[in-house]
Amino acid sequence: MFDLKPYLAKKIARINTALESILKTAAPSDRLLEAMRYSLMAGGKRFRSILCIAAAEAVGGDQEDVLPAACALEMLHTYSLIHDDLPAMDDDDLRRGQPTCHKAFDEATAILAGDALLTLAFQTLSSFETDNGRQAAKWLRVIQLISHAAGYCGMIQGQMLDIASEGEQLSMNELQSMHRLKTGALIEVSLICGAELADVNPAQLRKLESYARNIGLAFQVTDDILNVEGDPAIMGKAAGTDKLRQKSTYPSLLGLEESKTFARKLIDDALDALGSFDQKAEPLRAIAAYIIDRKK
Amino acid sequence: MFDLKPYLAKKIARINTALESILKTAAPSDRLLEAMRYSLMAGGKRFRSILCIAAAEAVGGDQEDVLPAACALEMLHTYSLIHDDLPAMDDDDLRRGQPTCHKAFDEATAILAGDALLTLAFQTLSSFETDNGRQAAKWLRVIQLISHAAGYCGMIQGQMLDIASEGEQLSMNELQSMHRLKTGALIEVSLICGAELADVNPAQLRKLESYARNIGLAFQVTDDILNVEGDPAIMGKAAGTDKLRQKSTYPSLLGLEESKTFARKLIDDALDALGSFDQKAEPLRAIAAYIIDRKK
Repeated sequence: MFDLKPYLAKKIARINTALESILKTAAPSDRLLEAMRYSLMAGGKRFRSILCIAAAEAVGGDQEDVLPAACALEMLHTYSLIHDDLPAMDDDDLRRGQPTCHKAFDEATAILAGDALLTLAFQTLSSFETDNGRQAAKWLRVIQLISHAAGYCGMIQGQMLDIASEGEQLSMNELQSMHRLKTGALIEVSLICGAELADVNPAQLRKLESYARNIGLAFQVTDDILNVEGDPAIMGKAAGTDKLRQKSTYPSLLGLEESKTFARKLIDDALDALGSFDQKAEPLRAIAAYIIDRKK
Repeated sequence: MFDLKPYLAKKIARINTALESILKTAAPSDRLLEAMRYSLMAGGKRFRSILCIAAAEAVGGDQEDVLPAACALEMLHTYSLIHDDLPAMDDDDLRRGQPTCHKAFDEATAILAGDALLTLAFQTLSSFETDNGRQAAKWLRVIQLISHAAGYCGMIQGQMLDIASEGEQLSMNELQSMHRLKTGALIEVSLICGAELADVNPAQLRKLESYARNIGLAFQVTDDILNVEGDPAIMGKAAGTDKLRQKSTYPSLLGLEESKTFARKLIDDALDALGSFDQKAEPLRAIAAYIIDRKK
């Protein structure tokens, strides 16, 4: 039986070391860098980067080869949180148990720290001194995939729709496509990039895409469930905020029990998609199960 | 005698067509895209993209080959203006003669439109379906250069310093290094990218770097001068705002006449750097002269 906990701990440690070594290049007295580090190193789950690594490993790739992509994905995720928390957006005071970036620093610094992490993601993805043209073409393709998923056709569009839908009653379809963009796109591309960098074959890629779509959605459904019944002390952020903001959520549309059944079904579909993968996909299988059991 | 006006008009038209065709890919009813287009197509001078093209042409390259870089530079410049104009930053109402993005739309949309243009810049830089490894390596290098210049070691750091220095009396050295980051870095990289994509040789590259440093600084000095004595109707933005904000500027440190002499000297140095270039560098020479004669 695969033990996920030490796997996650080991990956998180490796990712954090890699992120620290990227941030270390500038002077420590620097307020901008301080704000970037404050948010980037605030103890995130490193979900996206672990998916990237686990997907690479599932198809025979090596963790070290995809680390720049894993780090870039965390930077993109963190920047999106910093900007989403701003007063003009969700106006959140707490994130990962700490004051949000604009609370700990100030609004201008938070906007710029977000911009800087977004830019640093692409600097990290392109930071190869390579004479190997095939390698270069592969990373160029990864930059293309990630920028598409994170951009106005993906994550940013999802945040626009999320803001616009506050106080609106969404249909299940609308809710689903909003989340597919807001969180799903980056989660999916995390897996796809890891796999592509490890030279995945087309059949495996299609299966990983199906896995990715299902866990991406399941992740959001459980997020909504946690917002209803999660423990703020464990989550490091307030609960009940969706209801307060009259947000359409899976529990508000389906009810709490039905939402749990739905999440369970998505995870089953994700596991089905990995049916033909060998034991190298055990981490991906364990992560799928973990998504609906998590407490934060 | 080289005639700059039709040259600029032709280049601006080509760049705008290229930008429009990139933006055209999404649905027109989209509010996010509308905000992106509003700011990106607001009649900018296209200074950075023209420099990129002119540098490529100066070393024998072709405009069409560097267009993605030229477009990406405009997206980066525009995103930085949108975010700099925000209430938490410079709180400006007018830009290029129109309401700023957050005034025309709202603050959340402006933040996201900026994020989206920043991301689209890297999508554009990576949008090649290429099997040519050498080409891929070249574009990867361009992404590296641009992300460095636009990021926390470049433009964003410059904006941080600019905000921090409001109401402070800066020394000439401090003022210069702030501008070198805030506007100089992106201007310099515009020229360098154009040249690198056109396979510049090392000796020519060093000369173009010197040209770039000098005109970048001259551009800022004349910006400061225009803020004192420019015509708001021509500039499309308010004058006198630097003094109001107690900003350190070249006129405030050197006086107005001395600032003009300084700008002239910088342009002379820029022209000197191009001494060994042939007539293909005429546009760069004319642009240098134009920088200190411009009215907006």
